[in-house]
Amino acid sequence: MKPLILTPLEGIPLVQEGDDLVRLILEALQRHKLDLLKGDILVLAQKIVSKAEGRRVFLETVKPSAEAKELASKTDKDPRLVQLILDESAEIIRSRPGLIVVEHRLGFISANAGIDHSNVDEREGWVLLLPKDPDSSAAAMRARFEEASGARLGVRARLGVLIIDSHGRAWREGTVGVAIGVSGLPGVVDLRGRRDLFGRELRATTVGAADELAAAASIVMGQASEGCPAVHVRGFPYPLRQGRLSELLRPKEMDTFR
Amino acid sequence: MKPLILTPLEGIPLVQEGDDLVRLILEALQRHKLDLLKGDILVLAQKIVSKAEGRRVFLETVKPSAEAKELASKTDKDPRLVQLILDESAEIIRSRPGLIVVEHRLGFISANAGIDHSNVDEREGWVLLLPKDPDSSAAAMRARFEEASGARLGVRARLGVLIIDSHGRAWREGTVGVAIGVSGLPGVVDLRGRRDLFGRELRATTVGAADELAAAASIVMGQASEGCPAVHVRGFPYPLRQGRLSELLRPKEMDTFR
Repeated sequence: MKPLILTPLEGIPLVQEGDDLVRLILEALQRHKLDLLKGDILVLAQKIVSKAEGRRVFLETVKPSAEAKELASKTDKDPRLVQLILDESAEIIRSRPGLIVVEHRLGFISANAGIDHSNVDEREGWVLLLPKDPDSSAAAMRARFEEASGARLGVRARLGVLIIDSHGRAWREGTVGVAIGVSGLPGVVDLRGRRDLFGRELRATTVGAADELAAAASIVMGQASEGCPAVHVRGFPYPLRQGRLSELLRPKEMDTFR
Repeated sequence: MKPLILTPLEGIPLVQEGDDLVRLILEALQRHKLDLLKGDILVLAQKIVSKAEGRRVFLETVKPSAEAKELASKTDKDPRLVQLILDESAEIIRSRPGLIVVEHRLGFISANAGIDHSNVDEREGWVLLLPKDPDSSAAAMRARFEEASGARLGVRARLGVLIIDSHGRAWREGTVGVAIGVSGLPGVVDLRGRRDLFGRELRATTVGAADELAAAASIVMGQASEGCPAVHVRGFPYPLRQGRLSELLRPKEMDTFR
């Protein structure tokens, strides 16, 4: 089996609304002398996808409802931010001072509906929502990356695109990278029916492969101002296929930890 | 920033009680023409550590208590296995048919106390408990790997050793690799005080760096019979320091999802 190699694509400029992320990443790949070969995966931080899609909101423009004001006072948060959290959520799962955990409208459980303050704008008061439909964003970018690989090498390479965010977790400290948008790679890999060295069926039946890759890419992205919002991956060992975020989301009625 | 490179160390023979894992891994490194350089990390599947430490149990030798019998009937499990789960646990967190989630005596939340059936023995009826003290096992191996690097290259390299397992999660489908023993690398990386591009404090204050690396290594280990139980890591970007598992465990009173 080959090594798994994750290369941070440095030198991508600060992304603005309307920027062409695919072009910025292709330029970064060129600077890093990396071609796009069959099976390569591009991992993007949600932040640059959201910014390019214009998902910034100026808090001054948000009118909090009575519900938002009440939850804001319970949680010590800005009522306008809480309004955005409510707008982006299907359900409030837990709240306490400083923390609102929701089921995001995209289906996953996350703190503050993934709404981010940092690196949004030099002016105070701007926040960034998650991309509208990360699976679709990933799919659109994948089509263009595959086309670009064909233009350069004569044959279109089968590629994957993963959009990731950092999530806190139940039970364990520290955030980890998780998938929020998937195209061209499996969300989970189903091992049902596979057998161990002695012919017995395996205990763990599904592997959260896209989340494992999100965590891996998060390591090289870094978290601070020197962070790098895109990573090139070579050597992902699972067969690529059309995947989607929903594979990674446990149905509510199957979840004993909500 | 450099790429992160994870190389699966293939060709390690089936591990038996008493085997010298450090020697087996050093031999595998040599076959892969990999030296141990400053900052390299070795990631080991818990399974080979447990086997080398003789943590196999033959179920025929286990006498289930009344408590184990009751929980076994509620969860459709072998009462002898349930006895071992109880013995390895501090607390039962959830149970339903097919599932027992516990706080393991090592402090983390896990299904079935991490007790594994697969790849243990060609005979039926053997199971494998987690290592007794994975942090200590990792530390002892790290000392020997560092010594070996010095013997080969003249200067002892500062290294890390991580022991990992695959855990299910709240809310999301699919298992992911997580750290259960840490030596020589940070469990979590604290970003408090760091600022974004515009000088604002970062939202996420701690990163579960060792868990992210565990997930990354898990990708190349694979899960099935062709799995590879040890991985060499080069390019981990966070400064190495003496870390430990407990950094990754949220104190019970701070956890709203138990």
